[in-house]
Amino acid sequence: MTGVGPPLGASAGDEWVCLNVGGTVFATTRTTLARDPASFLYRLVVTPTTSPAHSPAEAGAPGLPPALGSPLGSSRDAQGAFLIDRDPSYFSPVLNYLRHGKLVMDKSMAEEGVLEEAEFYNITGLIGLVKERIQQRDQNCGREGRN
Amino acid sequence: MTGVGPPLGASAGDEWVCLNVGGTVFATTRTTLARDPASFLYRLVVTPTTSPAHSPAEAGAPGLPPALGSPLGSSRDAQGAFLIDRDPSYFSPVLNYLRHGKLVMDKSMAEEGVLEEAEFYNITGLIGLVKERIQQRDQNCGREGRN
Amino acid sequence: MTGVGPPLGASAGDEWVCLNVGGTVFATTRTTLARDPASFLYRLVVTPTTSPAHSPAEAGAPGLPPALGSPLGSSRDAQGAFLIDRDPSYFSPVLNYLRHGKLVMDKSMAEEGVLEEAEFYNITGLIGLVKERIQQRDQNCGREGRN
Amino acid sequence: MTGVGPPLGASAGDEWVCLNVGGTVFATTRTTLARDPASFLYRLVVTPTTSPAHSPAEAGAPGLPPALGSPLGSSRDAQGAFLIDRDPSYFSPVLNYLRHGKLVMDKSMAEEGVLEEAEFYNITGLIGLVKERIQQRDQNCGREGRN
Amino acid sequence: MTGVGPPLGASAGDEWVCLNVGGTVFATTRTTLARDPASFLYRLVVTPTTSPAHSPAEAGAPGLPPALGSPLGSSRDAQGAFLIDRDPSYFSPVLNYLRHGKLVMDKSMAEEGVLEEAEFYNITGLIGLVKERIQQRDQNCGREGRN
Repeated sequence: MTGVGPPLGASAGDEWVCLNVGGTVFATTRTTLARDPASFLYRLVVTPTTSPAHSPAEAGAPGLPPALGSPLGSSRDAQGAFLIDRDPSYFSPVLNYLRHGKLVMDKSMAEEGVLEEAEFYNITGLIGLVKERIQQRDQNCGREGRN
Repeated sequence: MTGVGPPLGASAGDEWVCLNVGGTVFATTRTTLARDPASFLYRLVVTPTTSPAHSPAEAGAPGLPPALGSPLGSSRDAQGAFLIDRDPSYFSPVLNYLRHGKLVMDKSMAEEGVLEEAEFYNITGLIGLVKERIQQRDQNCGREGRN
Repeated sequence: MTGVGPPLGASAGDEWVCLNVGGTVFATTRTTLARDPASFLYRLVVTPTTSPAHSPAEAGAPGLPPALGSPLGSSRDAQGAFLIDRDPSYFSPVLNYLRHGKLVMDKSMAEEGVLEEAEFYNITGLIGLVKERIQQRDQNCGREGRN
Repeated sequence: MTGVGPPLGASAGDEWVCLNVGGTVFATTRTTLARDPASFLYRLVVTPTTSPAHSPAEAGAPGLPPALGSPLGSSRDAQGAFLIDRDPSYFSPVLNYLRHGKLVMDKSMAEEGVLEEAEFYNITGLIGLVKERIQQRDQNCGREGRN
Repeated sequence: MTGVGPPLGASAGDEWVCLNVGGTVFATTRTTLARDPASFLYRLVVTPTTSPAHSPAEAGAPGLPPALGSPLGSSRDAQGAFLIDRDPSYFSPVLNYLRHGKLVMDKSMAEEGVLEEAEFYNITGLIGLVKERIQQRDQNCGREGRN
């Protein structure tokens, strides 16, 4: 609901990260974003400095934002938040899944919209949960239809 | 949810674009907005500089925003975002369609509102998808009515 | 979702207008707000300078905001947006009606709330559309009740 | 949706008042907040200066915000808005009732949440309307249950 | 809806506290956050200075924010709000429960999402209320299913 600046004293090595998803800023931690190593969000925040297993080709200068080689690009807005060209409201279930491992979505949300984002960010566990939810929804519809 | 400035160091030639749609700022990329060459959003961001096929009459000075000849006008707010005099919440499905080619809309949204925006921005693919969705909705209502 | 300043270089004679409705800022154009001459929004933006039919008693100094004689008052917030003491979320259907002449409202909105705003801003066409919508809703309820 | 500063040139004697309810800023007028003399919002904005019936013990220095003796406290945020430690979304029906005397609430809102706020702010008329609405809802549920 | 700075003149000893939950800022009071001594939010705001029962190991320097030993961490954003890496919209029922002791949630919210937050913040009373609500919901579904 309000103007969020970057976390106080945040720099590339800090725990807190701001994401500007389609115009809305989310505050989260590097740990959360790095939960799924196959996800694009992992590559956004894990640099060779913190993860030496990465190839040298991806290494940025130490102390600089992990810009090079990021699949999401790594443009930042004027407040230093990573810019991501995706829908903000359907990003919430993605981020929440990384926070606690569950699928939480408002009843007014379209399941297919969450699936689309889960696939874009490439989070396998979440993809599975959403597909399950869609299957349940469609079975319930069918059962109601037969009555 | 928060104060988004223009992307860091953004200028006319940059990838990131901010749109101020009716008072709400959306951050997206030139590539997304230019997805459908028949759309008004294409004309907003594609200038003769980047698309030499356009007529010279529309050419702005190099390095300047693509203001002249834009059908949406090209006024910008104090942060440099393009001003568009349309509803912000019904703009989300439009922008998401340009991002991934699917129709994603909250269950609480009015289908006719999305259609209105799809027609305003002149995005043929989206118009088709919304009309299909409306047809399905009305058929379901009819079937429920007959039971 | 974000901090909107006044349109770049906006002055009294400019096309873009910001309205601060109950704490939320909407960006729109003078043309949109002046669509219905009987509406309070018309009087907010149309000054004797642009509409010489008005009485001299209402005339402000040329080049100044159209403050005097406006039925909504014409206080402005620190960013120059006109302050209106009404609900922001139920203002969206009002502004959208002025933009495209249709009634678009979320399914979660109360029809009576839209009617209340349509009556406050005195927009006859919209009042008719909402009353029609309410009548349809109540007829559907009745029919469902009889089944 | 956007950064609202205090109304331009607002001071203690001005008509416009900003409330920071749980982190969200609402802009309204002193007249609206003072509509119900039994409400806490009345005491927030009506000072002995404007209402000499109050006890001298509550009188602040003339020209200063009406801080002393307010039951809601009268802390202000950095922009000068009165801070209120309550839910912002369920405050909208409260403020709208003071604006036009009707109960307008989204269909997705919990009636009990509006009742809770109506009781907190001590607005008798609104309490009655919400209780009526809850009664109607429960009767409808009962009738549907019997079918 | 708008840019909220820290409460005017707020310091570590003040009553008002801003929380930046996942990018959205909530304004509340120390008293509210300290309502449940078993909750993580209690530890966030109650420092040894105000609660001498705490172990010296947790004591920060007097006059400094209660950062050390807080289970939520105690990073602050640039405006001084405590950063919490959780969902903002599902935080509202948590904060409201601390304010008035009742469970208020929008009809469009997922009960499981509120439960997840109640468990994260470790608020026993709220956990009980949400579990009760879920049980009622599931019983109603079962009864409808049998019809």
